Amino acid sequence: MAAEWELVYWPGMAGRGEFVRLMFEEAGVTYEDVGETQGVQAVLEYIQGKNQEGGGIPIYAVPVIIKDQFRMCQMPAILQYLGKKYSMAPDSLEEDARAMQITLGVSDFIEEGHNAFHPYERSGTYDSQKEMAADFIKRFLEKRFLKHLLYLENCLKYNNDGKGFFVGDKLSYADIAVFNGLRVSDSQFPAEYAAADIPLLKAFRDRIASRPKIAEYLKSDRVKPFCGNSMM
Amino acid sequence: MAAEWELVYWPGMAGRGEFVRLMFEEAGVTYEDVGETQGVQAVLEYIQGKNQEGGGIPIYAVPVIIKDQFRMCQMPAILQYLGKKYSMAPDSLEEDARAMQITLGVSDFIEEGHNAFHPYERSGTYDSQKEMAADFIKRFLEKRFLKHLLYLENCLKYNNDGKGFFVGDKLSYADIAVFNGLRVSDSQFPAEYAAADIPLLKAFRDRIASRPKIAEYLKSDRVKPFCGNSMM
Repeated sequence: MAAEWELVYWPGMAGRGEFVRLMFEEAGVTYEDVGETQGVQAVLEYIQGKNQEGGGIPIYAVPVIIKDQFRMCQMPAILQYLGKKYSMAPDSLEEDARAMQITLGVSDFIEEGHNAFHPYERSGTYDSQKEMAADFIKRFLEKRFLKHLLYLENCLKYNNDGKGFFVGDKLSYADIAVFNGLRVSDSQFPAEYAAADIPLLKAFRDRIASRPKIAEYLKSDRVKPFCGNSMM
Repeated sequence: MAAEWELVYWPGMAGRGEFVRLMFEEAGVTYEDVGETQGVQAVLEYIQGKNQEGGGIPIYAVPVIIKDQFRMCQMPAILQYLGKKYSMAPDSLEEDARAMQITLGVSDFIEEGHNAFHPYERSGTYDSQKEMAADFIKRFLEKRFLKHLLYLENCLKYNNDGKGFFVGDKLSYADIAVFNGLRVSDSQFPAEYAAADIPLLKAFRDRIASRPKIAEYLKSDRVKPFCGNSMM
């Protein structure tokens, strides 16, 4: 049976696609990870627009999700869309705005981390700019890493004393965004993550990781490694 | 009479706050531009959290909007929230997702432009890093400026052959986002903007600028200058 959705993202890495995979997994929705099943050439064709004629709004970059004639990009927008479609979004306008604020904060966090590893050419390889990157990564760790984490810790504390979710009383796409932001922070900077005084976030991460569908996913071969030289 | 909303943003500049101002202006909603009325110290206090105790979700950065006990940050999330609240958002889930995709594309565009002018320290001044910035700005213009504009041109063309709005048949927050993205592109890089082959976007910009409330705003002293050394 064909999957309900296609996810177009680079094969072999977690990246920004991982946020989308986690949404599908928690929702229990089937998806074809096109980079994995069809290879990198299929991903390049989407980006270059060859598959877009007559097929929906222009796409700027991966991750892209596709279902019949509907397609979209931009990770935070995808999370919100899937959240609303699959009951992983707050009900009120104000709470949804908060969920999006938090999701965009995570997106900024990983983008800043990415840029620290790619200071000269954001779409270039880390290896091509790693000498320049060393100083940027050092400053990112000194000035930004903990700042972002503490902001998220305070956001969590604000809602139900940090004992539950980021917004309201049920899981939303903001929780998935932060959960993956914490996973990649720990993967890329394990010593700094371990040292960070963010007890609520660490307990939150354990709670999300133990949800049945997420736990099953994390044990599966559908999980791709984080890049190791980025914040993705 | 007190304004309906407070907008917290740096005084004396358009910046990311300009997107929010345009939403309020088009909606016909009154707002106090706190940076202008209370000065930069009031803005710093919001960022440093002194005004946040008991007052809502933690704030990461300006622009911030405040109404009674509700406050939020993150420009794209603010645009979507105000759009939904004041009838400047699409009705369907899929169309709203497209509006958010486009809004996030504009946000990425101005962020990349900002980073080109601030390559070493994103929160530092342009003057402190302008020698390094020269090469980054050159490459931004060569590789990214037109790419972003052409993507937006194609998005506009996709909807009603580019003769109306970005999504559906009425104004949405995506239109406001692109409109201001075009204004700042033209302001910062007038020669490159004039040379860009984006006829649909240029006609669109004229249409939005001639809407009565926007036209009145653009003539008023509420308009702040763009920074002149950024894409804001």
